[in-house]
Amino acid sequence: MPHDAAIAELHSLLGDRLVTSDAERTLHGQNETYYPNTPPDAVAYPETTQEVSEIVKICARHNCPITPYGAASSLEGQHLALHGGISLDMARMNTVLRVSPEDLNCTVQPGITRIRLNEELRSTGLFFPVDPGADASIGGMAATRASGTTAVRYGTMRENILALEAVMADGTIIRTGTQARKSSTGYDLTHLLIGSEGTLGIITELTLKLQGQPETVSAATCRFDTVEDAVNCVILTIQSGLPMARIELLDHMMVRGFNAYAKAGLPEVPHLFLEFHGSPASVAEQVESFAAIAEEFGATGWQTATKAEDRTALWKMRHSAHYASAALGSGGHIWPTDVCVPISQLAEAVTQAQEDAVRLGLTSTIVGHVGDGNFHAGLSVDPENADEMARAHEFTHALGETALRLGGTVSGEHGIGIGKQSFMAQEHGPAVAFMRAIKQALDPQGILNPGKMLPSADLAAAAE
Amino acid sequence: MPHDAAIAELHSLLGDRLVTSDAERTLHGQNETYYPNTPPDAVAYPETTQEVSEIVKICARHNCPITPYGAASSLEGQHLALHGGISLDMARMNTVLRVSPEDLNCTVQPGITRIRLNEELRSTGLFFPVDPGADASIGGMAATRASGTTAVRYGTMRENILALEAVMADGTIIRTGTQARKSSTGYDLTHLLIGSEGTLGIITELTLKLQGQPETVSAATCRFDTVEDAVNCVILTIQSGLPMARIELLDHMMVRGFNAYAKAGLPEVPHLFLEFHGSPASVAEQVESFAAIAEEFGATGWQTATKAEDRTALWKMRHSAHYASAALGSGGHIWPTDVCVPISQLAEAVTQAQEDAVRLGLTSTIVGHVGDGNFHAGLSVDPENADEMARAHEFTHALGETALRLGGTVSGEHGIGIGKQSFMAQEHGPAVAFMRAIKQALDPQGILNPGKMLPSADLAAAAE
Repeated sequence: MPHDAAIAELHSLLGDRLVTSDAERTLHGQNETYYPNTPPDAVAYPETTQEVSEIVKICARHNCPITPYGAASSLEGQHLALHGGISLDMARMNTVLRVSPEDLNCTVQPGITRIRLNEELRSTGLFFPVDPGADASIGGMAATRASGTTAVRYGTMRENILALEAVMADGTIIRTGTQARKSSTGYDLTHLLIGSEGTLGIITELTLKLQGQPETVSAATCRFDTVEDAVNCVILTIQSGLPMARIELLDHMMVRGFNAYAKAGLPEVPHLFLEFHGSPASVAEQVESFAAIAEEFGATGWQTATKAEDRTALWKMRHSAHYASAALGSGGHIWPTDVCVPISQLAEAVTQAQEDAVRLGLTSTIVGHVGDGNFHAGLSVDPENADEMARAHEFTHALGETALRLGGTVSGEHGIGIGKQSFMAQEHGPAVAFMRAIKQALDPQGILNPGKMLPSADLAAAAE
Repeated sequence: MPHDAAIAELHSLLGDRLVTSDAERTLHGQNETYYPNTPPDAVAYPETTQEVSEIVKICARHNCPITPYGAASSLEGQHLALHGGISLDMARMNTVLRVSPEDLNCTVQPGITRIRLNEELRSTGLFFPVDPGADASIGGMAATRASGTTAVRYGTMRENILALEAVMADGTIIRTGTQARKSSTGYDLTHLLIGSEGTLGIITELTLKLQGQPETVSAATCRFDTVEDAVNCVILTIQSGLPMARIELLDHMMVRGFNAYAKAGLPEVPHLFLEFHGSPASVAEQVESFAAIAEEFGATGWQTATKAEDRTALWKMRHSAHYASAALGSGGHIWPTDVCVPISQLAEAVTQAQEDAVRLGLTSTIVGHVGDGNFHAGLSVDPENADEMARAHEFTHALGETALRLGGTVSGEHGIGIGKQSFMAQEHGPAVAFMRAIKQALDPQGILNPGKMLPSADLAAAAE
């Protein structure tokens, strides 16, 4: 077996928390998308930061790749051990270490998932707002710079982490940031690690900003004749400065998916799903202002959900978009992709994506966090169908090019991982060389999640 | 003259925009604090990014240090050419390149100052919210991760920059980020450059988030018997989630300074200066909620300023804190220092600072952006008085240690520069080695603002 020597040493360190069974390896090679199963050689389950450091030192001695693993909900293959080695499963490091209600922050281990974190926070009156839909691990959300439905109001992982503890490629344990809300000392290693997809360091602890649970929450849905009307309503809403907590677009295909998957019974036209947070007076004012804007764009079918269970049902449905998209196709797999554009370009980007899907004969839903200019296309694909996969690839490529042409980015929240490396040079140009220099400086052996984010130097040279 | 060869080549490139007169050199060696005049060997005035790149290439060939220079308002000597070489004065790169009202962003050159930027934005109904008091250059504010009075509501430079263009140490021009509001692609070079004090790259263009001018703005002041009462009022206000636009603490010494400098005629007890932004209904609600909290802590002397000219006068006075602090002492100089702590620790940090000043026989004001847990001490010093300077140094050191002990940072917004390098190891521990590795990777010759932020390796070794 490759990496025998490293695995033997890891076994001595971790005992039965170093697993090499086929079942565990296959489990850790799975993903929600179209990537083939990619098992690691072994799975390690550390329980402390010190253990993570020891594991990294062993792997460094043996040049054994380490792929951090959270809840396996990443959508560009970030958690797959592409070059073998070990999958570093953070599931046992899942504790809330400290909550400071008076400072509106908490410190957690990376393996805790966002739903459990919020359950543990409930009694404090606080919550952690970032909600990518999937019940992702907080460490994984940080590593992929995740965001989701509430980013329009509360920001992404980038805006919601005060401090990190991380194990670097030589096993050194570092702390970045403090519990203070801001600092101007030193290079911003916190933000360098956020979104680095486990390629620069392994996050072992996170200090998170928390929000007070809003006094009043109100959700609503409405529908539009055309996707342009819906998007233009969003654009004006954001430009008006309304502090929307959620503003999600579903195109007619996505609604069809929810009808198929969740028997939603919705008219198959574009919808917006909305949420408002604030004091009772503020929420009433927000709803009134939004309704006036929506009316300008011909919104109909206004439905509100002020009861908690109705809101839960609404967002549960929204969060099933991945599976609802799959329900539309015969292949059973989804090729999910996302882009983010300046909001003024949103209508063009969405309609271009719809046209591309039709042109390429693909079944695609569009759903998105449109308040940020971010949306997802979910292509139903059968990985066995090479022609369909080629067309899906062409769609993704065209969508990324559209986003770049419109001043945006090839991913608002899914990241680069395995799937979007070919865009790195296009989006970042000469900056890629400096990213590579940083990777080389911080992980000279290349043992941290190799094969992710940065295209291999060979590929990069070929592209030039 | 040192760096003769580089200066000769730069002269060929820039003509009379490369200045070596004593007057210009002395001007660029000045600062607002206690550092001695530190003139560069020459001052370069680039007009384009391409020129900055050419300048850097020339300096790289000759190992000539480059110190970026904005409005010279940095408070830890960041703009001083400590090792000679050239001062790169960005004053001629001061244009607003693009405003996109529909996307709430704009792109500017680094030399524009924040007041001029907001004058140019006025007709759009938008504004750039970060307000450090001084009329700093936007590039300098980014390079030092500045913030100020409005960060409690709108965030610091860290939260308000979407994208940068920068010239790296080898002359390469890179772009980081896009006009989209978020992205999960690539390492976050934007945030790595923000706060790097010109040591990793020279910022030549910035894309900034803008805010809609609030429909209603209301300012107010009130006073308290003790600084603990004032601080506890702030803590509860922030914990209650009130979206304060500004909430500034002035201790009794700061009020005395305003009385001396600006004939403010205020009772010499702790004050809060406040501002509220929002719709008329929202502002009314905020004021009412704040007033109820303030009353709990015995606030009196409530004065409001809804007229623009009254608010301007209020914040003009607040922004004169530096000079008002100087007015209290005989030395005519201010040793300004700042720390930032978790808000729950604010009362302890402020009272400790006051006690330390008394213990050390120093005249010090305290004023701060207390909604963030950030405050300034302004020590009146006479740089000729070695004993007083030693006590000021002891005060600054004690204040930094207090902040670290309370879970905070040795600077919320002034940065490290020359003055706080001795704290780097204490605050960042083993992370400093990785900062140094990044510096080495991105500027292997060490020509970008040498002597700033990172202690020299000799000093670091001695500290271990």
